[in-house]
Amino acid sequence: MVYKKITLIGKSDESFDAAADDAIDRAKDTLENVYWAEVKEFGVEIASVEDRQYQAEVEVAFELED
Amino acid sequence: MVYKKITLIGKSDESFDAAADDAIDRAKDTLENVYWAEVKEFGVEIASVEDRQYQAEVEVAFELED
Amino acid sequence: MVYKKITLIGKSDESFDAAADDAIDRAKDTLENVYWAEVKEFGVEIASVEDRQYQAEVEVAFELED
Amino acid sequence: MVYKKITLIGKSDESFDAAADDAIDRAKDTLENVYWAEVKEFGVEIASVEDRQYQAEVEVAFELED
Amino acid sequence: MVYKKITLIGKSDESFDAAADDAIDRAKDTLENVYWAEVKEFGVEIASVEDRQYQAEVEVAFELED
Amino acid sequence: MVYKKITLIGKSDESFDAAADDAIDRAKDTLENVYWAEVKEFGVEIASVEDRQYQAEVEVAFELED
Amino acid sequence: MVYKKITLIGKSDESFDAAADDAIDRAKDTLENVYWAEVKEFGVEIASVEDRQYQAEVEVAFELED
Amino acid sequence: MVYKKITLIGKSDESFDAAADDAIDRAKDTLENVYWAEVKEFGVEIASVEDRQYQAEVEVAFELED
Amino acid sequence: MVYKKITLIGKSDESFDAAADDAIDRAKDTLENVYWAEVKEFGVEIASVEDRQYQAEVEVAFELED
Amino acid sequence: MVYKKITLIGKSDESFDAAADDAIDRAKDTLENVYWAEVKEFGVEIASVEDRQYQAEVEVAFELED
Amino acid sequence: MVYKKITLIGKSDESFDAAADDAIDRAKDTLENVYWAEVKEFGVEIASVEDRQYQAEVEVAFELED
Amino acid sequence: MVYKKITLIGKSDESFDAAADDAIDRAKDTLENVYWAEVKEFGVEIASVEDRQYQAEVEVAFELED
Repeated sequence: MVYKKITLIGKSDESFDAAADDAIDRAKDTLENVYWAEVKEFGVEIASVEDRQYQAEVEVAFELED
Repeated sequence: MVYKKITLIGKSDESFDAAADDAIDRAKDTLENVYWAEVKEFGVEIASVEDRQYQAEVEVAFELED
Repeated sequence: MVYKKITLIGKSDESFDAAADDAIDRAKDTLENVYWAEVKEFGVEIASVEDRQYQAEVEVAFELED
Repeated sequence: MVYKKITLIGKSDESFDAAADDAIDRAKDTLENVYWAEVKEFGVEIASVEDRQYQAEVEVAFELED
Repeated sequence: MVYKKITLIGKSDESFDAAADDAIDRAKDTLENVYWAEVKEFGVEIASVEDRQYQAEVEVAFELED
Repeated sequence: MVYKKITLIGKSDESFDAAADDAIDRAKDTLENVYWAEVKEFGVEIASVEDRQYQAEVEVAFELED
Repeated sequence: MVYKKITLIGKSDESFDAAADDAIDRAKDTLENVYWAEVKEFGVEIASVEDRQYQAEVEVAFELED
Repeated sequence: MVYKKITLIGKSDESFDAAADDAIDRAKDTLENVYWAEVKEFGVEIASVEDRQYQAEVEVAFELED
Repeated sequence: MVYKKITLIGKSDESFDAAADDAIDRAKDTLENVYWAEVKEFGVEIASVEDRQYQAEVEVAFELED
Repeated sequence: MVYKKITLIGKSDESFDAAADDAIDRAKDTLENVYWAEVKEFGVEIASVEDRQYQAEVEVAFELED
Repeated sequence: MVYKKITLIGKSDESFDAAADDAIDRAKDTLENVYWAEVKEFGVEIASVEDRQYQAEVEVAFELED
Repeated sequence: MVYKKITLIGKSDESFDAAADDAIDRAKDTLENVYWAEVKEFGVEIASVEDRQYQAEVEVAFELED
């Protein structure tokens, strides 16, 4: 029973919370046994989007199957 | 008039803001002269809660009485 | 075409998101070609305000004109 | 011949050494050409286990096949 | 239900594991609801002891009572 | 014999040395067995004081009684 | 549309630039939608190679397919 | 005679060296008395350019006129 | 009401305190509404000066006018 | 009476503790007045050894003779 | 013409400035061509001295002879 | 068989690669059994040289003789 951590960057037009949720949602869609997430960095993309895009880089930990 | 900093971890089902507020609320309930707070880390607990639990580790600074 | 980064601290009575927006809004009011922003630190001012003031220190990157 | 690094968290009821070994054992079970490991953090889980559970977050480097 | 983290430095003539245990033992003797611990630094005192003294600086997290 | 570290912020109108002393003085007034201190950050408050106020954030280590 | 970051270590007998390119080349060979890379560390292997081997540890970000 | 440091991000299609030079060139075009530069981060932009664009974030120090 | 932070390096033949003051003095000469300063690094220049030159790199925060 | 710190990397087939001891033993063999050691990093070499080799990078402080 | 950096810890009963000077003095007594010094950490020893002992860990850079 | 790490700063008028090589060359001229090097920082000296001088601060690891 070993955990693995992967690094995902989620996005949202609304908030940092939603950007972190976006990354966690993606992890939960493809991985079982997601345990926790740690925020590594928040950023905002401005130039290439209409208004602003909140971004959250998170490390997501999940349990590896034996 | 010296400040002391303590480290608290607040929780919320709603948002990182509310998790930070949770820690600050607790500090204000038991300490007088709370001055400011600094976010040290945001995390999300997933496995042991129904949906998600936002967590905020904050350092809270308050003034020690002489 | 070189980017420059400056450090701004925005404020909000509502949330960390709004505090980051506050800093970015200011950058966009006075600078053209703002590209992105990186959150350096979140804090909460408590003693000198009525309730709480969320603060976001952000680095804002913009393109220098040739 | 490029290396890839992944982040694993091993566990042990005995010691930090054994927790690091746990993560490395797992890597060697599923990957060929594991080269080295770097300890990123040691922790101890207390509340959810009977006594104590030593945990080691390690980055494990292995060689990608061409 | 807010967590508080305190910083303790445990000691042992035997090993880093035992030094971390020493700090956690102390926390559990005086605090209820100790949840987890994070190692911040390992050191070895040499000059003022007979042989060597392993030291572990750990942050211990416990739940504050409401 | 376990050490505990607490974080204090001392102040002085004179110098960073005096600001660190201020924090250590406070620790020695209320704690026995203060062993050492580590400077975490030096700052200067300007807007809310007449001239300047030097500030020193220090971690102070003391021995817990058995 | 979530990004994932992975950590690769490229090598070159020539330069740090070529070592970073080596890691990025590998990423582009096996992944679609590679967006950017960040250098985490440069090193030089000396003992086990004929002359010198430049190494670049890079984080490569790519977009996950929905 | 006080120094000021500003943060610039230079770009090059060739190498990290040229990207750092790009930022320093820009600083020297508009500032007198540029003294030194420190590399903060190297990155590579891939998705929005034809091949690769090396980027260097540098802090450039120059002397302020009295 | 947004703060901006700039990075200055002050110098003194006397002490680190005076070097920090040197940078803050300069900021106050040219900026209104200087609020606080944070020391980033202390250094000592030896080779190019007669005796020693204490240097303090400080971030100075001031309020931008609306 | 000034301390000097040097950086050594000790090795052991057994444990991280023994790897740190290995570095400290070496320091004590060739230096008088070794005072303390601080662990900078733990790693495990895997590819070039039979089983595993625990490595400890430690800073060792000793007193310089006048 | 290559620089080497060594790490020294100076001491003083008076101030952090004097502690840094103590380390630099020692370097200049035994090395030619000392160029600059960088403060890594300030601390205060309390338990084993009569009053307080200020300590400064500094990296001292000097030019190696060809 | 213990490794020791020393910190050298190499220089070059050409590139960061050559500056790192400069430091490693120096280490190999005076030390046997140089194993690897890690880049700690890249900088560029501008004011005191004709054009630019690239500098690389590297930690060089070598094996101590028994």
